[in-house]
Amino acid sequence: MSSDRVPNIVILGGGYGGLQCAMRLQKKLPSGRANVTLVSKHDYHYQTTLLHKVAAGTLATRKARIFYRKVLDTNKISFIKDSVLAIDPENRVVECDRHKLSYDYLVIGLGFRSKTMNVPGVDDYAYSIISLNTAQHLAHVIENKFKDFAITQNSDDLRVIVCGSGLTGIEFAAEIASQLDDLCCVCGIDRSLAHVTCIGGSRFLPGFSDSAVRKAKKKLVKAGVEIVTGARVTECHRDGVTLKDKDTGAVRELKGTTVVWCGGVQGSEVVEQSPFENKQGRIAVDEHLRVPGVENIFVVGDCSQVTDENGKPYPATAQIANQAGAYVGDALIALIQGRSLPKRFKYAYKGTLCGITHTDGVAMVMSRAVSGELAAFIKNFVENRWLFNIGGLRMVIRKGQFRFRTSN
Amino acid sequence: MSSDRVPNIVILGGGYGGLQCAMRLQKKLPSGRANVTLVSKHDYHYQTTLLHKVAAGTLATRKARIFYRKVLDTNKISFIKDSVLAIDPENRVVECDRHKLSYDYLVIGLGFRSKTMNVPGVDDYAYSIISLNTAQHLAHVIENKFKDFAITQNSDDLRVIVCGSGLTGIEFAAEIASQLDDLCCVCGIDRSLAHVTCIGGSRFLPGFSDSAVRKAKKKLVKAGVEIVTGARVTECHRDGVTLKDKDTGAVRELKGTTVVWCGGVQGSEVVEQSPFENKQGRIAVDEHLRVPGVENIFVVGDCSQVTDENGKPYPATAQIANQAGAYVGDALIALIQGRSLPKRFKYAYKGTLCGITHTDGVAMVMSRAVSGELAAFIKNFVENRWLFNIGGLRMVIRKGQFRFRTSN
Repeated sequence: MSSDRVPNIVILGGGYGGLQCAMRLQKKLPSGRANVTLVSKHDYHYQTTLLHKVAAGTLATRKARIFYRKVLDTNKISFIKDSVLAIDPENRVVECDRHKLSYDYLVIGLGFRSKTMNVPGVDDYAYSIISLNTAQHLAHVIENKFKDFAITQNSDDLRVIVCGSGLTGIEFAAEIASQLDDLCCVCGIDRSLAHVTCIGGSRFLPGFSDSAVRKAKKKLVKAGVEIVTGARVTECHRDGVTLKDKDTGAVRELKGTTVVWCGGVQGSEVVEQSPFENKQGRIAVDEHLRVPGVENIFVVGDCSQVTDENGKPYPATAQIANQAGAYVGDALIALIQGRSLPKRFKYAYKGTLCGITHTDGVAMVMSRAVSGELAAFIKNFVENRWLFNIGGLRMVIRKGQFRFRTSN
Repeated sequence: MSSDRVPNIVILGGGYGGLQCAMRLQKKLPSGRANVTLVSKHDYHYQTTLLHKVAAGTLATRKARIFYRKVLDTNKISFIKDSVLAIDPENRVVECDRHKLSYDYLVIGLGFRSKTMNVPGVDDYAYSIISLNTAQHLAHVIENKFKDFAITQNSDDLRVIVCGSGLTGIEFAAEIASQLDDLCCVCGIDRSLAHVTCIGGSRFLPGFSDSAVRKAKKKLVKAGVEIVTGARVTECHRDGVTLKDKDTGAVRELKGTTVVWCGGVQGSEVVEQSPFENKQGRIAVDEHLRVPGVENIFVVGDCSQVTDENGKPYPATAQIANQAGAYVGDALIALIQGRSLPKRFKYAYKGTLCGITHTDGVAMVMSRAVSGELAAFIKNFVENRWLFNIGGLRMVIRKGQFRFRTSN
């Protein structure tokens, strides 16, 4: 590009990675040095680490979302609400539903979709917790089934089946189990009729130590969750799932009209169909988080596969997306100011947190397993700190959680 | 009835009147003296005085509802969730959708329905604010229209037309006007494209003094509401209303896809079809709030028409419903304990409040017009005091409003 033209930076997606990148540019890039545009199909960022609470009906939707126009200085960052359709690296253009955007630098942060593992019936009958809308919908569905029980008398409506034992599956199972106490109370339903079953996948809380996993299982059971391991879901139906025992191959039906699919995530479809080498929508990025061989395109969050020095891939989390977004922001500022790129991206792992209801949880912090109230406190603290970084004290006061449990 | 049988008291409806009556019986009637049953089609009471905020999206649904099972001591009061279909005074039976209830004493508090004044299109195209569900639905509809404006570019979607200038109409118009500031901000919409028009009915804030009405109009305009007087709505369409000038008869169209009908209320359909003399579902009760000539049936709230000593009817408000409910509770206790009925029901008018946004309003208190922050404060105070009476300090903390404006 000619030196007197201001470069265009286009950020696709406003999840943890994209938003953090935009905030970094807003704070540190001197005015007038680049045209920065953030594109998202929603007007708001949502905190995926809180979706399980929205889905259980214990957290108000507005607490889990942050409107971009409230945190972005639109004099410095343009926001465009649109759906990204395709990336054309040859012409340096991004095609959206209603816009065509030229870029000099591109940041891809298009997030994840649910991974159905080709299990029949998932798309048709299972609910998911992959966006604020799906989470809110699930909360309404469950509440209405309990309210209508007086009329329907269908006890299968009181059974929630959670498929998956990753972070979202576990956190949601615990949250909805504690919420069922309240729903049964206000709807006059015998608590023993309501059930939450969590069907473990191949791994239980990946990234947690064996002792943390043991503790988490105990806490789940205490919260009222029945855990099924050693079996996998082979089909979802309108009124339950089919389970197949991994050892014996025996097949059985589990009844419950609310099946929630938490069977893992994969990268974006746009990335999958892009000309870049990828695996299920995930691009294995270079040490500067760029598409290998493409100097002006960075990838952050769940669309990227980041590896450590030894080539071992890191799991996709909000934590790594945040750090990647900040790194890419800094990298872009360096490039625009004619400096060389910062040193390779190094993920500073600060721990992993799993909330089990509002006041309990397990966490891995500095290689140590922490549990109970302390884990719950740390999770809360981390979320509030993130809010503080994005929007200051005002944002913490408006969106933060302070141990006041939402109750009917 | 024989003297060794415990009498059945059935309360139909759990609005302000029915709930207050039940709470009075719960507190003051010694155990075992009557079987008290409250019937409602919802699991919860909702505060109709707050519905306009739920409809504008500025108050969370859970703040405006109180689950019966959380405030009723079910050892003393049975709660049945069911729809009342018909009252049969001859056999002393109430027919519900799934139950048949025998009563010795009946309290009718079946509330109101919207009064469409036979204006064509109201049922098909207008939204209403007559229940928590309709209010919540309206909030979603408006929010989604603003969010989708980037795609639809239909500026009629940004125009809200409020038909009616009673309490709900005025309060909703002011609330949604202030909320549009926020919605335009977060959705990136030029504020001048969004409009709220309030079409006045035959009277503007009935029950308020002329000076209070003048002040309210000024405040509405300041909040961004355009007031149309001297015309009436002759038809509602999908994209607006037809207005006819009262003087000239000139007809004009007003564009706006969100038409909200606040054209007054009438009594319940069950009452209308009952064998009791009534006017549009309202029964003119005797001095003890009974159906004239029927000793064991009381009527409270919007199904009743209460008159003062001079035969002048009181307007139907939450305030009078509350007092009527408490009076009927006391009357039932007296009857059951073999005492004579209390003196005639006397309505203690404590004032009328109209909130205009969260921090402003007008009020009639002790025959004086009060306005501004003080009026807003009094309204808030009255609502919190009501919560305190129903559920104590815990309820105030959980449901009360403390000047923290809900904001995105």
